[in-house]
Amino acid sequence: MNEEIKINLTAGFICPIPKSEYDKILLAHGGGGSLSHQLISKMFLPQFDNELLNAQHDSAIFTVGKNKFAFTTDSYVIQPIFFPGGDIGELAVNGTINDLAVSGAKPLYITTAFIIEEGLPIDNLWKIVLSMKEAAKKAGVLIVTGDTKVVERGKGDKIFINTSGIGIVEEGIDISPKNCREGDVIIINGSIADHGIAIMSARERLAFETEIISDTAPLNDLIRSVLSASKNVHVMRDPTRGGVASTLKEIAMTAQMGIEIDEAKIPIKEEVKGACEILGFDPLYIANEGKVIIFAAKEDEKKILSVMRAHQFGKESIVIGKVVKEHPGTVVMKTIIGSTRVVEMITGEQLPRIC
Amino acid sequence: MNEEIKINLTAGFICPIPKSEYDKILLAHGGGGSLSHQLISKMFLPQFDNELLNAQHDSAIFTVGKNKFAFTTDSYVIQPIFFPGGDIGELAVNGTINDLAVSGAKPLYITTAFIIEEGLPIDNLWKIVLSMKEAAKKAGVLIVTGDTKVVERGKGDKIFINTSGIGIVEEGIDISPKNCREGDVIIINGSIADHGIAIMSARERLAFETEIISDTAPLNDLIRSVLSASKNVHVMRDPTRGGVASTLKEIAMTAQMGIEIDEAKIPIKEEVKGACEILGFDPLYIANEGKVIIFAAKEDEKKILSVMRAHQFGKESIVIGKVVKEHPGTVVMKTIIGSTRVVEMITGEQLPRIC
Repeated sequence: MNEEIKINLTAGFICPIPKSEYDKILLAHGGGGSLSHQLISKMFLPQFDNELLNAQHDSAIFTVGKNKFAFTTDSYVIQPIFFPGGDIGELAVNGTINDLAVSGAKPLYITTAFIIEEGLPIDNLWKIVLSMKEAAKKAGVLIVTGDTKVVERGKGDKIFINTSGIGIVEEGIDISPKNCREGDVIIINGSIADHGIAIMSARERLAFETEIISDTAPLNDLIRSVLSASKNVHVMRDPTRGGVASTLKEIAMTAQMGIEIDEAKIPIKEEVKGACEILGFDPLYIANEGKVIIFAAKEDEKKILSVMRAHQFGKESIVIGKVVKEHPGTVVMKTIIGSTRVVEMITGEQLPRIC
Repeated sequence: MNEEIKINLTAGFICPIPKSEYDKILLAHGGGGSLSHQLISKMFLPQFDNELLNAQHDSAIFTVGKNKFAFTTDSYVIQPIFFPGGDIGELAVNGTINDLAVSGAKPLYITTAFIIEEGLPIDNLWKIVLSMKEAAKKAGVLIVTGDTKVVERGKGDKIFINTSGIGIVEEGIDISPKNCREGDVIIINGSIADHGIAIMSARERLAFETEIISDTAPLNDLIRSVLSASKNVHVMRDPTRGGVASTLKEIAMTAQMGIEIDEAKIPIKEEVKGACEILGFDPLYIANEGKVIIFAAKEDEKKILSVMRAHQFGKESIVIGKVVKEHPGTVVMKTIIGSTRVVEMITGEQLPRIC
């Protein structure tokens, strides 16, 4: 410890996160909410500072020759590693595919890096490898390189997986929060909070009448259909950590536009709603792994809904809100009982290690 | 546990690693030696099976339009996270830069994904971020996107970092073990085993008369000079985990050529040699983080050595051996006392979590 402290004292720069607030990393720093946001905006962005990073897409977008590429990375630390509807391997492949897809890219290649805790049954790794293979095949991407590290018992937790991905953005496609316009409709492709509640039920061994399963799915094909049908898609995001609420709030802040959503329109399964009530969770903040939120010009609403509803991962697609010029940076929800509520970013951490 | 076992039974395929041998992951599965090799050759390659992966470069090489790219990933789990000569942040940036560079690529963009253990002092993260910034700047690459996950106390170990990278391979450059030819000279850019022994001394709080510091360094500029000086560079590798021995053995096996090295020629610092003797380590198997092994046509030996020796990271560059057609797949070393020794891949794990 002495050594580390010494090094810190000689670093020569003052850490920008107010120490009086938090001097240690909390679970919430990885929760996709306001503390994550603080790390990104106060520490990572000002230091690593460059145009590609500062754009704050789900992927970095860069151009080489005539081609535009998307490049993204995500680590998966989900617990448990096997859960109803999927496992950490499938999640890791789908998650990176979706990050590329919501950036408007066609995913091409992904890498996989394992950090394994000593003692993991080889059979578990084997099951995860098969599941990654299957997920990559379904989405039409190749796993092209990898890395394996092993840490001692008690220094990891079974297995963590990082996947990074590269995709190609076709000419004319420009997806970004800054493109969001007044009057844009906000579409979601199905029910919210399935993933988080499936993990929670597996973790706590809760039994519901109907088994709740994760919505983990590759969204690249669905998104490709949408982009073929409309040239007026402005923003896309997958509402994972922090849920629909944090995702919308982030877009509103980046775009400096207002967002209005209608609670009655947001699809949610009865059993998921019930589980959230019992557990005291707000489903708007629960992670999804097979959902995309699309902002598009009102004039293309019907065209987009029609192609989405024809797709296996978009059958329940629906408009849940719109972009307004009032209250820039703020998300307002009309609740079912008719009042309105301001939707903030998640602050604490409802469900650590959800992805 | 029951759940996981159930899932395994229904997986439908038999795990290809002989269970009688190891049914659990050992530290050595991440050591870069024969067990790592078994995971790769029996599990990952046959399942993820594709041309790019099967080439088994340090990076996957792919072409889009007229451009050839290199894509690589590595996770860093080094312990301690601050050590003489560097820290995990600098190591993570340099390591991925070097993987791209030894593939013949000019590194362009890297991603960074943190897995942090709850409770890490924010100051430590800050120091690491500054160090990554500095390393990226030195090597002329941009950190363009990232991810942060936090796990509970006791489920991680301070911080793990994954970096993935993209680089461009210039026209006419083709670096690959399969290009290795009879008569090629084998060059190294300096002394071996510094990194591993620096970590070991930090970990065990050993005090040597002279402080041994890690050789962590970005090699892209050195390698660019070499590739500008000679069109006859055939293979390059950075001898990290598993050391010079495992790296040479892997090349010999992939190329199906013989390799002869001369122990007396291999540069090693006196204090590192002494530490290895005391600790019972073979320096040939110790990790390096600022070294590159270059196989090139004999005719270009002088040209290459001259540009290497003019570079800050290549002052002690020297020829340590050559490629022969005898004993394909085997590395033979002429020892200092004049006998010969067959050099195998590392089997156990001398130094876990060295990178």
